[in-house]
Amino acid sequence: MRLAFTAEYDGTSFSGFQKQKNAVSIQQKIESALEEITQRKISINYAGRTDAGVHALSQVFDFETDINREDKNWLDGMNSNLPDAISIKSISRVSDDFHSRFSAKDRSYTFVVYKSKSKPLFFSSFSHWDNNTIDIKVLKNQAKMFIGSHDFSSFRSSNCSSRNPIKNVSEVNIKDYKNFIFITIKANAFLHNMVRIMAGTLLDIAKGEIDLSIEDILQKKDRTFAGKTASAKGLFFLGPRYDSNFNIPSPVSDLLDRVSI
Amino acid sequence: MRLAFTAEYDGTSFSGFQKQKNAVSIQQKIESALEEITQRKISINYAGRTDAGVHALSQVFDFETDINREDKNWLDGMNSNLPDAISIKSISRVSDDFHSRFSAKDRSYTFVVYKSKSKPLFFSSFSHWDNNTIDIKVLKNQAKMFIGSHDFSSFRSSNCSSRNPIKNVSEVNIKDYKNFIFITIKANAFLHNMVRIMAGTLLDIAKGEIDLSIEDILQKKDRTFAGKTASAKGLFFLGPRYDSNFNIPSPVSDLLDRVSI
Repeated sequence: MRLAFTAEYDGTSFSGFQKQKNAVSIQQKIESALEEITQRKISINYAGRTDAGVHALSQVFDFETDINREDKNWLDGMNSNLPDAISIKSISRVSDDFHSRFSAKDRSYTFVVYKSKSKPLFFSSFSHWDNNTIDIKVLKNQAKMFIGSHDFSSFRSSNCSSRNPIKNVSEVNIKDYKNFIFITIKANAFLHNMVRIMAGTLLDIAKGEIDLSIEDILQKKDRTFAGKTASAKGLFFLGPRYDSNFNIPSPVSDLLDRVSI
Repeated sequence: MRLAFTAEYDGTSFSGFQKQKNAVSIQQKIESALEEITQRKISINYAGRTDAGVHALSQVFDFETDINREDKNWLDGMNSNLPDAISIKSISRVSDDFHSRFSAKDRSYTFVVYKSKSKPLFFSSFSHWDNNTIDIKVLKNQAKMFIGSHDFSSFRSSNCSSRNPIKNVSEVNIKDYKNFIFITIKANAFLHNMVRIMAGTLLDIAKGEIDLSIEDILQKKDRTFAGKTASAKGLFFLGPRYDSNFNIPSPVSDLLDRVSI
């Protein structure tokens, strides 16, 4: 039997999702909790890596198990064996052809900017602070230029190992709300650091620090023309989307629906 | 010349406001920053102690100095020498008869409850989690009973050293909003752990775990009749209020005005 779980996490104190030697990862915590409650070694598939400090509202992972147990027992068992910063939200029984990564149709991320002269304080782990004047109209106009299929070579980190730099961005949404700017991007897939470089470049253009447009920078296919990589702690992985017959809850489309006070 | 500063802080990683041996306190961080920028040993007065994990929106502290410097320079100098979790918000030049603690007319606190079956996650450092059913009507009705001058012996920790257990609570406000309950209390002064025991007792009554009323428990003058001490991390010191001629900004009356996303 194959199970798919959705997990929410505060990435602040982890070295990222993926298991690593000599570092505390979210994957390791999840696999340890699974081992604890099943007494089996379990290795999971997951929808997408997130870097150190990046958060998730709906990371999806799946694994094979011969253990039959009610959903509530899986949930309670996992949550009592996971640290406070990681929480399992839902459980779906999926067919054998499901794979958290390969079955995903698209993925969404929201990047949170906190714009203020003073430090964000209570949101410092959950936002990228910018104390400069940001022209929100410019930011909105530039952001639209990401929509479509483009070669994103200008928007990938130098150690990105993806073979194909062409990604299809289907949605870009900018929300200007109180001290926050929410930059939400949906694409079939993402390159390493892509959202953080997209957000950092939008900010640099909207502050007048870069004279090129997003269109220009896409055409250069060269990382050196894009802006700064914005802070990991401002990034939220909203989650992947699957064919509805897998019965996995869709990610929230608006981060505010989940985290607003 | 006497200066009064207002400071905001995330108390998560401190041992509390007051300086202690072998522990990292907010007072110590502030006095070190003052020493750094004035090259003098400075000992501050402050409005109120807060315990480990307790946050503040507007703690007030004052000190004597012979250094003449523009407000902006004090602010920038302090904020660049303080850790990210502490931020100076304002500076007032006060008369010599001002004392952060003794001049305060009253003080306000808000206690934040997160009510949900699942863990608060992104608010875990800023709320007290309760996953039981809370009768908000009961909570509101009971809370009113705190208003007035009472002997608060039932609502003080066993190591409270205050000589006078009689305090005058002038306002109690309960706000039920999304997954949160905000319990705001204003009084001339507070005993040790008073707000946390008040909040914990209100919750215990509103969950049906205590059969006595707040009135009953006040009359007992005995800590053993009150409820649990709610988590420090749910507590925010909104700040003290002074006579307007001291020109110190009043604390926000609604925590949401400051921290809401």
